[in-house]
Amino acid sequence: MTSRTALGTLPVFVKDGKVILVDQRHIPERLDYFDATALNDMCFAIREMVVRGAPSIGVAAALGLAACAKELAEQRQAKEEFLLALAAAKRKLDETRPTAVNLHWATKLVFEKAKELAKTSVSTKRLGEDLFVFAETLIAEHCNIHKQLGDLGAKLIGKKASVMTHCNTGPLATCGWGSAFGVIKSAHMQGSDLTVYVNETRPRQQGARLTTWELLQEGIKPTLVTDSMAGYLMAQGKVDFIFVGADRIAANGDTANKIGTYSLAVLAQYHQVPFYVCAPLSSIDANIASGKDIVIEERDADEVMIIAGKSIAPAGTQAYNPAFDVTPAKLISGIICEVGILRGPYIREIEKLKLK
Amino acid sequence: MTSRTALGTLPVFVKDGKVILVDQRHIPERLDYFDATALNDMCFAIREMVVRGAPSIGVAAALGLAACAKELAEQRQAKEEFLLALAAAKRKLDETRPTAVNLHWATKLVFEKAKELAKTSVSTKRLGEDLFVFAETLIAEHCNIHKQLGDLGAKLIGKKASVMTHCNTGPLATCGWGSAFGVIKSAHMQGSDLTVYVNETRPRQQGARLTTWELLQEGIKPTLVTDSMAGYLMAQGKVDFIFVGADRIAANGDTANKIGTYSLAVLAQYHQVPFYVCAPLSSIDANIASGKDIVIEERDADEVMIIAGKSIAPAGTQAYNPAFDVTPAKLISGIICEVGILRGPYIREIEKLKLK
Repeated sequence: MTSRTALGTLPVFVKDGKVILVDQRHIPERLDYFDATALNDMCFAIREMVVRGAPSIGVAAALGLAACAKELAEQRQAKEEFLLALAAAKRKLDETRPTAVNLHWATKLVFEKAKELAKTSVSTKRLGEDLFVFAETLIAEHCNIHKQLGDLGAKLIGKKASVMTHCNTGPLATCGWGSAFGVIKSAHMQGSDLTVYVNETRPRQQGARLTTWELLQEGIKPTLVTDSMAGYLMAQGKVDFIFVGADRIAANGDTANKIGTYSLAVLAQYHQVPFYVCAPLSSIDANIASGKDIVIEERDADEVMIIAGKSIAPAGTQAYNPAFDVTPAKLISGIICEVGILRGPYIREIEKLKLK
Repeated sequence: MTSRTALGTLPVFVKDGKVILVDQRHIPERLDYFDATALNDMCFAIREMVVRGAPSIGVAAALGLAACAKELAEQRQAKEEFLLALAAAKRKLDETRPTAVNLHWATKLVFEKAKELAKTSVSTKRLGEDLFVFAETLIAEHCNIHKQLGDLGAKLIGKKASVMTHCNTGPLATCGWGSAFGVIKSAHMQGSDLTVYVNETRPRQQGARLTTWELLQEGIKPTLVTDSMAGYLMAQGKVDFIFVGADRIAANGDTANKIGTYSLAVLAQYHQVPFYVCAPLSSIDANIASGKDIVIEERDADEVMIIAGKSIAPAGTQAYNPAFDVTPAKLISGIICEVGILRGPYIREIEKLKLK
């Protein structure tokens, strides 16, 4: 089994009707796969970060809900009863992770489609099958969207540049190409001579484990740094651009992303380094006025305390583990999405996109 | 064997004429000791961070040079020949780590004392013995100095406060009491109700491994956070003070300290959080005009790449590992030392101290 494509390693795919995930917990040690066809398995996979990255979570959840629909359709012939059961499954998926909006965007999309199909389908069985096909199209769609935003962002980068990125926003996180990673990949493919600083991204080290791995697959040499080095690198003039992804963007441009992003944005402003958020439109939550309303997921303290199965601190130590932070719009130089680069005032530009 | 005292676990002590170090590489897993009496062993211990923390490195180097003097005295009766050999040993020690000034301060102190004793000693043997006694007094002196600066700094903290610290500046790093740690300890002993955020301090995790361990020994509950969380904590109003140590302070107040300190200082200014450097006068290098002239030690990339013996990134990844950064004086709210709290302009205050 392989999920390697020209767009990078795809984290979600369908094989023999089953929803298969790359188990991102084990990269770069080994490339394992995880069968997430059953609803409970998909919920576990999202919660425990077998699949991660806001866009990939969205695609996985869509396929998970569609797979669940196929199963429900076999037990329930009455469409209303079927839709009620599907709504319960949707709620279960939505509760797995609170911050990434793509998850809710995707399950809503599938559920709305189910309601639409219910009006015309000859049977729930047929409805389930059609819904699954619909969810499958999201994989290819995500690839295309990220390729577009990557190419757009790459135009900002000249022939030679030094860029910094945080966390992982490559094919694994976005279902192909990548967001912030996609910008770097597009620039590399257009011939830019890049130095790429990859922040380790504690606690879960997505930068060290996943972004370096994906860059190497593209023939781009990563330079790994600890999160604490960002300021010093900027002070030395070693960073021309910072590109990051997004888990949720509010209507005013405030952006929730992996913990540490906010510190980077403050440091970038102090050093006058352009700081770009790279994300598909599905990451924008126009229903939320500002970052103040974004729920920040707090994860288990063990993610901070334990690395590779070993505790890094003595017993009795407690840890705090907010998984995300919010970067206010005023610190963001631009939001790169598939339709262009928003430059602010974001509130007006996002309103024009009519995403609600 | 134990080095536990009322002042905390002493990292350097003398037993049966031998110079013994606590092996700080193994804390908190186990409390091991390292015989660093022989010059080569002391050089290894400083380079490989068996002993670390600028003041402790100073004391260890002083005792190491004095132990070496005792040995040299047994082979060389001519005082001039003895001093030449001692100068060579001093150079060897000085080369082990370039950034911390206390190392050079301490070896210079011992060497000057040797020259002074050479004028009056009846023999090189007696000179060596006297020199060793002189070096031994530095341990107690360091304890007293840090207790003084800790008590001074504690006056800044009210009845209830939330403080953040970086790296390790406790008894292990300073030979008793602690610098930034000493301020926290003094405040705790004076009854302040403290929340203490300890930054992990990648790459070598001195915060997670050592500071938490030392706080727990004092009955203070540490809250461990990753280095990337500092900005988010400040944005939430969760940090009232930041206290850090120093490896070298230039004549204008610019301060070299563990990598990540500079980022913290920029974040502190943005959030208007008071940012204090805590260090004994021996950390001030009045011969260096500004931070631009401080050599920043670059250490092995493996410190970034490997945690607990396991690589965190795939083969082919390179890493950058500057061990320190320089915080410009303008970002420092005050320098807490044993004679008072310098508030700036530091260049004038440091000049008045006549430290050259």
